[in-house]
Amino acid sequence: MACKFYLYKGKGKKAESGHPWIYTTEIENYDGEYENGDIVEVYNFKGSFIGKGYINDASKIAIRMMTRDIDEEIDEDFFRKRLRDAWEYRKKVIDTSSCRFVFGEADFLPGLIIDKFEDYYVIQSLALGIDKYKPIIVKLLQEEFGAKGIYERSDVPVRELEGMEQTKGFLTEPFDTMVQIVENGVKYYVDIENGQKTGFFLDQKENRAAIHKICKDADVLDCFTHTGSFALNAGIAGAKSVLGIDISEHAVEFATKNAQLNGIEDRVKFECHNAFDVLPAWAREGRKFDVVILDPPAFTKSRGTINNAVRGYKEINLRGIKMVKKGGFFVTCSCSHFMNEELFKETIADAARDARRCLRQVEFRTQAADHPILWTSDESYYLKFLIFQVV
Amino acid sequence: MACKFYLYKGKGKKAESGHPWIYTTEIENYDGEYENGDIVEVYNFKGSFIGKGYINDASKIAIRMMTRDIDEEIDEDFFRKRLRDAWEYRKKVIDTSSCRFVFGEADFLPGLIIDKFEDYYVIQSLALGIDKYKPIIVKLLQEEFGAKGIYERSDVPVRELEGMEQTKGFLTEPFDTMVQIVENGVKYYVDIENGQKTGFFLDQKENRAAIHKICKDADVLDCFTHTGSFALNAGIAGAKSVLGIDISEHAVEFATKNAQLNGIEDRVKFECHNAFDVLPAWAREGRKFDVVILDPPAFTKSRGTINNAVRGYKEINLRGIKMVKKGGFFVTCSCSHFMNEELFKETIADAARDARRCLRQVEFRTQAADHPILWTSDESYYLKFLIFQVV
Repeated sequence: MACKFYLYKGKGKKAESGHPWIYTTEIENYDGEYENGDIVEVYNFKGSFIGKGYINDASKIAIRMMTRDIDEEIDEDFFRKRLRDAWEYRKKVIDTSSCRFVFGEADFLPGLIIDKFEDYYVIQSLALGIDKYKPIIVKLLQEEFGAKGIYERSDVPVRELEGMEQTKGFLTEPFDTMVQIVENGVKYYVDIENGQKTGFFLDQKENRAAIHKICKDADVLDCFTHTGSFALNAGIAGAKSVLGIDISEHAVEFATKNAQLNGIEDRVKFECHNAFDVLPAWAREGRKFDVVILDPPAFTKSRGTINNAVRGYKEINLRGIKMVKKGGFFVTCSCSHFMNEELFKETIADAARDARRCLRQVEFRTQAADHPILWTSDESYYLKFLIFQVV
Repeated sequence: MACKFYLYKGKGKKAESGHPWIYTTEIENYDGEYENGDIVEVYNFKGSFIGKGYINDASKIAIRMMTRDIDEEIDEDFFRKRLRDAWEYRKKVIDTSSCRFVFGEADFLPGLIIDKFEDYYVIQSLALGIDKYKPIIVKLLQEEFGAKGIYERSDVPVRELEGMEQTKGFLTEPFDTMVQIVENGVKYYVDIENGQKTGFFLDQKENRAAIHKICKDADVLDCFTHTGSFALNAGIAGAKSVLGIDISEHAVEFATKNAQLNGIEDRVKFECHNAFDVLPAWAREGRKFDVVILDPPAFTKSRGTINNAVRGYKEINLRGIKMVKKGGFFVTCSCSHFMNEELFKETIADAARDARRCLRQVEFRTQAADHPILWTSDESYYLKFLIFQVV
């Protein structure tokens, strides 16, 4: 028998409306026995069933919901159904050659991320409760979805909030972890063993495609280029010249390799610079570009440091806007959930005022469709992406 | 000498930051003589130049800015430059076979709308000051942009706020005003003489393309179909069946003609219904669709009636969401500026809660890129468009 958890009066409203989390502070008492990682049942103070999920009392998020159906067992069939739903959805909305296959809470599989790179899969397990289902998930990916190899990239600090250790390694027979993929017609090496996160940021796929139209015949600057993705898209789209910059020498080398892979290394170059330093220096020299792209890392991962983040975004956007020729384009984004859409837009407006430039919005986009935003779970919305003409 | 207008202390801040309007209530005094429609100069209370624009003291919006450059004359060269800028921008960002060529304030030509349908142009003049430049604009469209015919559709009530009459008619030699266009691979007849607004809503071009991926093999319901545009895109994308409904018999006939033009009238049908009545009736019968699309007219055109509009949007979205099969898609939009993004999203969330359905956002979009959003002019942002999976 699953242990039953009862919430305080007035608590669990968001969970009842579909939010997948129950906080420790919402729980009044429980009836039965449990171990961390077990599937438990959640009830409101009136005793009405809310859902079933896995518990970890070592985490602030005590319970993460797996189902709203009291009769649904969390077993192999459950995971088969969830993975099939996730796959059917992605086949409808995106190029699935490489894509995010499971986006945690938004795919009703809390704490689980699965990225697909051609026939190779990368799993990230962020919570204790999902960790123990890894063998089932591996089996299903091989049996149902043709996985030739699966690698775990659970080397993320957030696991420590769950009282778990960081870990990485093969979940199948070892394979060459330098995988080659194609996205928007651009070829990439993806280092699924040592690259950032799962090796490649799939969430900008459609945003990268959105810059093609403005990059033809342009001189393009791509800041925080990482694996070179925006720069390479600009190059493939016919840019006259592209300069990608990154603070990491390793990123610059990797991006250069990707440019060579596409045979566009004559037009797409990479240099190692700190954008915060080099943009003001270039501005003083009067250097300008037709298109400037900013894809910085998240300046904040918590609500507490939001003011610092706003200052960071303000400064880099101000610097970026100033580098755009009159009539050229400015591309900017934020991948921080806490830097919400409204705040991000205000910060850009502020930067434009200070730069004394006028912005015309060409397009507003979010994360790609394989990272769906579950409206009952705010946390699933994080990526804001904008294209402007600077006039 | 242009008449000089001086603003009250503390007024005109938005105009100084780039907003194109000066309200009557912001003007303290003026120096010189003017007639309504004249180009005048605007200064803040300190006497600093803000910009030049045309005046109409019969309107609440007394002055609309044409330039921020005191030396720039408002003459044929000025309009040539503005139109060239507008055209160069559109060539970069959108399929220009048919597109919005000038989007008023956002193209720094306040009060002027120009839509291009293949080689035919439709002009809408919304203010007295721009009206007198019509001959120059007509000449330039013919000389520089290959206009084979130009029609005026200034039959809009908003002109009466400027003390002007509504008007429509040829600005060139007469031509056949039933023009044929192609957008996203769909052919349309556009009735530029008697269709709504300028004959066709170009602002949803990219949003119509965005539904292709979810419509393949689907049973689709398109509400408020008007000229049939979303329904026809669903059909072209390979929908199994499409039903477009509209309250206007004339719209239904016109949409049917467009289906025939594309040779898809066997799969794309149109019926005359009031969506507010027929959706509840069909819901009672248990009728459901794989994809439901709502593209209603603006339920409000002013801040004053926003509460009624929210009720209207809430009801129709609630009805729409209920008609979607589990795992199917819901497409919804609002073209009312006053129903802003935040309020519209709240209203949809509210409707989903009442319908007891869970929404996953696939994509959020705005008006097409040929209707750019000028960040210093809030009014230029009006179209919100969302695709959800209903789970």
